[in-house]
Amino acid sequence: MPRWEQGSKERLQQAAMELFEEQGFEDTTAVQIAKRARVTTRTFFRYFADKQEVLFADENMLRAALVREVVQAADVAAPLQSVTQCLSGFDWESLGSRESLRRREVMIASTPCLLERELIKQHQMADEFGSVLLQRGVDPNVAGLAAHVGVHVFRSAYRQWLEDGDDTDLVSAAETVMSRLATIVAADVSSTRKKASAALRSS
Amino acid sequence: MPRWEQGSKERLQQAAMELFEEQGFEDTTAVQIAKRARVTTRTFFRYFADKQEVLFADENMLRAALVREVVQAADVAAPLQSVTQCLSGFDWESLGSRESLRRREVMIASTPCLLERELIKQHQMADEFGSVLLQRGVDPNVAGLAAHVGVHVFRSAYRQWLEDGDDTDLVSAAETVMSRLATIVAADVSSTRKKASAALRSS
Repeated sequence: MPRWEQGSKERLQQAAMELFEEQGFEDTTAVQIAKRARVTTRTFFRYFADKQEVLFADENMLRAALVREVVQAADVAAPLQSVTQCLSGFDWESLGSRESLRRREVMIASTPCLLERELIKQHQMADEFGSVLLQRGVDPNVAGLAAHVGVHVFRSAYRQWLEDGDDTDLVSAAETVMSRLATIVAADVSSTRKKASAALRSS
Repeated sequence: MPRWEQGSKERLQQAAMELFEEQGFEDTTAVQIAKRARVTTRTFFRYFADKQEVLFADENMLRAALVREVVQAADVAAPLQSVTQCLSGFDWESLGSRESLRRREVMIASTPCLLERELIKQHQMADEFGSVLLQRGVDPNVAGLAAHVGVHVFRSAYRQWLEDGDDTDLVSAAETVMSRLATIVAADVSSTRKKASAALRSS
């Protein structure tokens, strides 16, 4: 890599985020991003296929790392927990400061084409987790459900963790969401029992 | 509507599905669909913004109907169940035969750009359900979680129901997935307790 290109990728990512925030995602072009980062447009396209990818650049590496975590999880007898623990135990701040992750999240949530890309990536990741659980002997009916609900529990904790902005850790945030889910599911089971016993009484 | 255009929308939908299956979604054009349905390309675009929309044409009407169901649900003390019951109680076969719904599902799952659109529509629907639950007094921390997990439970049941192709009803399929979820969550709670008591013993 020529010396003047060192750090280009990071400069491009920072420039892109600044421009997206200043003038909106739709109105920002690759040419503008390259200009702000003081590199050529050709350099932009050497790193990113399109401006969406600036926000998802490390996604494949990340997904592989997370899938490896689930493959190596000590115990899959509690498959939902295996998934949420692997996700929440990952060092997300190795990808950027909590503030920059928060800004990325806000940008994605408010831009339909980015949200679409985020959702399909999450969906594919959950499918991969499901396959891993299956390979590790989890019941086929359970594997996919645990994987997808697990990813959702994690995402809910992750958003909370970013919003909090204090020193809550992500593992505790995920445990809070898990116990919330346990409460909701228990409420449903008890409501079903009440209905069943009401039906018995009235028959 | 001129007499010769009666049934155009249905003919276009049928022609599109045939062509997508015969030659793939990517290789099918609006012009080909219109030709097969014996209408002009202009007529195609009167009904659909693009070829993706052929598969999502009734989506807004459907979403409004489903949100109305949640608004009117008798009881939101069990919010997850309210969501899955509203979804699974809906008469999906009013939108097409089970076989045509199954073919639509296969087409969406195997075509990335359709899957993206499906996922964002599901996500938006879950967000709306969450807002309704919130308005009905459900705890803010619980509303979104119940809505998103509820949509996921329903989708899992819906896919099973389409695959079964026999006379299982969708409500029972959703109840099966709900009790599966209850089992998974209980496994997690018990695993957490075991770990906690092991930690106590070793301290």
